[in-house]
Amino acid sequence: MAESFLEYYEGKTGLTIGIREKLFDKQTPYQRVEVFDTDAWGHLLTIDGMVMLSERDEFVYHEMISHVPLFMHPAPKRVLVIGGGDGGTVREVLKHRTVEHVDLVEIDEAVVEASKLHFPGLGVFEHPKLSVTIGDGIGYVAGLENAVDVIIVDGSDPTGPAEGLFSESFFRDCERALKPGGILVAQNESPWVPSYRPAIRAVMQILAGQFPYANLYLSFIPLYPAGMWGMALASKGGDPLDGPLAERLAEDGDFLEALRYYNPELHRGAFALPNFVRQLIEE
Amino acid sequence: MAESFLEYYEGKTGLTIGIREKLFDKQTPYQRVEVFDTDAWGHLLTIDGMVMLSERDEFVYHEMISHVPLFMHPAPKRVLVIGGGDGGTVREVLKHRTVEHVDLVEIDEAVVEASKLHFPGLGVFEHPKLSVTIGDGIGYVAGLENAVDVIIVDGSDPTGPAEGLFSESFFRDCERALKPGGILVAQNESPWVPSYRPAIRAVMQILAGQFPYANLYLSFIPLYPAGMWGMALASKGGDPLDGPLAERLAEDGDFLEALRYYNPELHRGAFALPNFVRQLIEE
Repeated sequence: MAESFLEYYEGKTGLTIGIREKLFDKQTPYQRVEVFDTDAWGHLLTIDGMVMLSERDEFVYHEMISHVPLFMHPAPKRVLVIGGGDGGTVREVLKHRTVEHVDLVEIDEAVVEASKLHFPGLGVFEHPKLSVTIGDGIGYVAGLENAVDVIIVDGSDPTGPAEGLFSESFFRDCERALKPGGILVAQNESPWVPSYRPAIRAVMQILAGQFPYANLYLSFIPLYPAGMWGMALASKGGDPLDGPLAERLAEDGDFLEALRYYNPELHRGAFALPNFVRQLIEE
Repeated sequence: MAESFLEYYEGKTGLTIGIREKLFDKQTPYQRVEVFDTDAWGHLLTIDGMVMLSERDEFVYHEMISHVPLFMHPAPKRVLVIGGGDGGTVREVLKHRTVEHVDLVEIDEAVVEASKLHFPGLGVFEHPKLSVTIGDGIGYVAGLENAVDVIIVDGSDPTGPAEGLFSESFFRDCERALKPGGILVAQNESPWVPSYRPAIRAVMQILAGQFPYANLYLSFIPLYPAGMWGMALASKGGDPLDGPLAERLAEDGDFLEALRYYNPELHRGAFALPNFVRQLIEE
């Protein structure tokens, strides 16, 4: 079998990836979950035909969505991950010694199943500090108050089951679920892609209205549309770039050398946005 | 006509772009130069089937290859651009008031011709401070000594006519052509692409051996392989990030607001490299 995966992200602009074989294919009540073996990126997870991660590039997304908020919080003990059923975000979160408990709330059990079967490097599903809940993250967070230090929204694009993860009521519930000084991070699409821009702008406006501090940071993710991906960060404290980053790195950074993307200079550099991205989120 | 452009950058991984029509096609003694009208990126220039630029994303490459060296040099008066026959780099260089003269040395007249015909927003070929030479940039720079303040190597990939632009002898000649305190920038491929990595590493090693300071910085370029592009910077002075950047921005930065990518924070942020890129260039 010599086929190609193809994801268009704007008109007929898209990314194509060589496929050796399909390893997993399940239509769930929520979405279609597929895993492919590729010619250059190892195993590839897609949902509804959109790339979620590959074995070769997943470290960028998972390191950046985890270590940026966790090193900015003065003492992250309780962490909630919404989505993230592949396990990669939790793997990174659990590297922080301060973390006492992580709740992972994934709506679609098939994502966890596909990951356990075909991405053995991602999941740490049996970790004693981890609770996995298969269920609706939106309802889960609505039931929390002053309960967690960091929330990581690791969902898919704002079509299908993840649409509610871009809504004002969801972020209001996140704000209430966070303890004082709490930090929220949510994946926030690619500023290069016109069809994403309304959602990117909306998320930033909602967060700026509900938190004292909200900003966007960027990462290079080769298999995501246009290779540029944004993550929205909001803090119940002040600007976390003025916060305890240096102390936290000294205290809890013994695993930094083994990381493949994140480092403290890059952490700050990722918040330096190109003008066209600044204009998008400040409009 | 409804076709697609497709550039593979590794195995069967590649970028595809919707094409309305082909506007230009010339096989020169050096390479094949084509221009397409696309469905989402305006006009697209390709050389030997590889994307050089589109009207929509060219600002990233041209702003970053020009303003980073020019704002780091204390008084850039004479600038040499090797390659860059599309005119976009020269357009940005000429925004600096300090610049008294720019020499553009492009090997292939067809690139200039295609740009004049199909990229009217790029070229400022008739500017009184600009001299355009159609010829071999390698031979041109070999004839210079203590002559220019900034050299920008704006060539294509290290296959075909641009191969010599990645050689030790060429960079030695650049070093001699630069005045004291001079700065060299050379486009240096995508760290994500395995076939580019030997050239990226070789360029950084050559520059580190011939200049007191050499480093790499990164930009998000959506139509280049993997969306991440490196530019190598070398300085005959010390670390130019410790140099006169703030003074230069105050003195010559009246056009900053109109830029679409570059800003002073991003300038510094672009030098914050992911761990895997650091490891590549420090190996």
